[in-house]
Amino acid sequence: MSEIVTAGILVIGDEILSGRTKDKNIGFIAEYLTNIGIDLKEVRVVADEESDIIAALDALRHRYDYVFTTGGIGPTHDDITADAVAKAFGVGIDHHPEVVARFKERWSEQDLNEARLRMARIPDGADLIQSATILAPGFKIGNVIVMAGVPTIMQAMMDIVAPKLKSGVRMLSESVRANAREGDVGGPLREIAKAHPDTVIGSYPFLDDEKKPNTNLVVRSRDPEKLAAAMNAVKEMLAGLNVTTR
Amino acid sequence: MSEIVTAGILVIGDEILSGRTKDKNIGFIAEYLTNIGIDLKEVRVVADEESDIIAALDALRHRYDYVFTTGGIGPTHDDITADAVAKAFGVGIDHHPEVVARFKERWSEQDLNEARLRMARIPDGADLIQSATILAPGFKIGNVIVMAGVPTIMQAMMDIVAPKLKSGVRMLSESVRANAREGDVGGPLREIAKAHPDTVIGSYPFLDDEKKPNTNLVVRSRDPEKLAAAMNAVKEMLAGLNVTTR
Repeated sequence: MSEIVTAGILVIGDEILSGRTKDKNIGFIAEYLTNIGIDLKEVRVVADEESDIIAALDALRHRYDYVFTTGGIGPTHDDITADAVAKAFGVGIDHHPEVVARFKERWSEQDLNEARLRMARIPDGADLIQSATILAPGFKIGNVIVMAGVPTIMQAMMDIVAPKLKSGVRMLSESVRANAREGDVGGPLREIAKAHPDTVIGSYPFLDDEKKPNTNLVVRSRDPEKLAAAMNAVKEMLAGLNVTTR
Repeated sequence: MSEIVTAGILVIGDEILSGRTKDKNIGFIAEYLTNIGIDLKEVRVVADEESDIIAALDALRHRYDYVFTTGGIGPTHDDITADAVAKAFGVGIDHHPEVVARFKERWSEQDLNEARLRMARIPDGADLIQSATILAPGFKIGNVIVMAGVPTIMQAMMDIVAPKLKSGVRMLSESVRANAREGDVGGPLREIAKAHPDTVIGSYPFLDDEKKPNTNLVVRSRDPEKLAAAMNAVKEMLAGLNVTTR
């Protein structure tokens, strides 16, 4: 079985912690990584505080193959992600000539003020993540991918950076609707999980269209045969289930 | 100025990290805490792995006044939050007689199987978080509040536990629409932020109804007079802004 590639996400922004902005990036990146065969292992959300950003970044980047950050690369005083990343890596940071040149094409001299020029500050040695439609670039330094907080821009950056990432064997997933309450399948499901060690079996309760408690069962594995064997066991269990009421 | 009360959130669940389920709890709790005067400082999302849960829980509970966890208290084998919390606190865990008694009222002997009884396992010394409409209780042990992952149940639990929490002076917030691009306000905003040290000023770009780039500016402070002074400075700055285009 081939290598497993892991990742962490670091969301940076006071506005997420205050609840003013509801994060939409974690779910998107999580699903994206699953689809390209990278295992998301941990997410952290921290404030626009340099020491907090550096501490979280260091914890994640030493632990996982990749770290994806979102937020804090705009033109205002609270956008400090690039500086924090440079400090974490112990490298300098300066206006990137290629980015400055693009900004000069786009903005008049009056509009290209100090605030906008901040968005051209890139840690030394980082690779730009940019395209014609992305104004302020993201960047990749070491195993850290720094992206915008605005979902549409972050998503465009994921598309640019994804082909350059190493990825492992994709985690396969299959799900079945139990038509039973979670408490009715919990016991037998535990036995199936024990008997199928290279699979991960999850159980997710929900209310169905008739507002009756129901459960989705999800089997995940990198090995299609082991996935199929575990799913067969789950389906046999469900067929034999003696459910009195729902 | 009165005490500041801080909190962390720990979201527990493979389904969030795989992207299968999109978290709705972080944003809700974040806004809720802001409204009752508790500062959310950090969020972590970890998998259904005991060692990961304990490590994150220990990091957060020693650092912040409160930790709110969501997920992993259901009836299946992957619901291991209560056990992990008991281990983190170094206490035992057993079926809570009060919860078992309620389960016996609700379920027949056949339905009250081992899986459902798991939901009655509560760490020693914890206080139950429950009501007539909540089936499996949450609990509070030390400064850790353990809640369900299903949003409606988690929200009911927040309502039960919130009145018992100490809270600080509420962070006040006022926002103004800049009618300018973020890059046009970045420079003057930095000066205003420097001149008003007991406030936090945030800048959030968005596309308005005409798809033009626009910016919301948010001033936050615990002191209403300092908030007003900073907001006045922001509004004066905006009135004098020489914006060529948007």
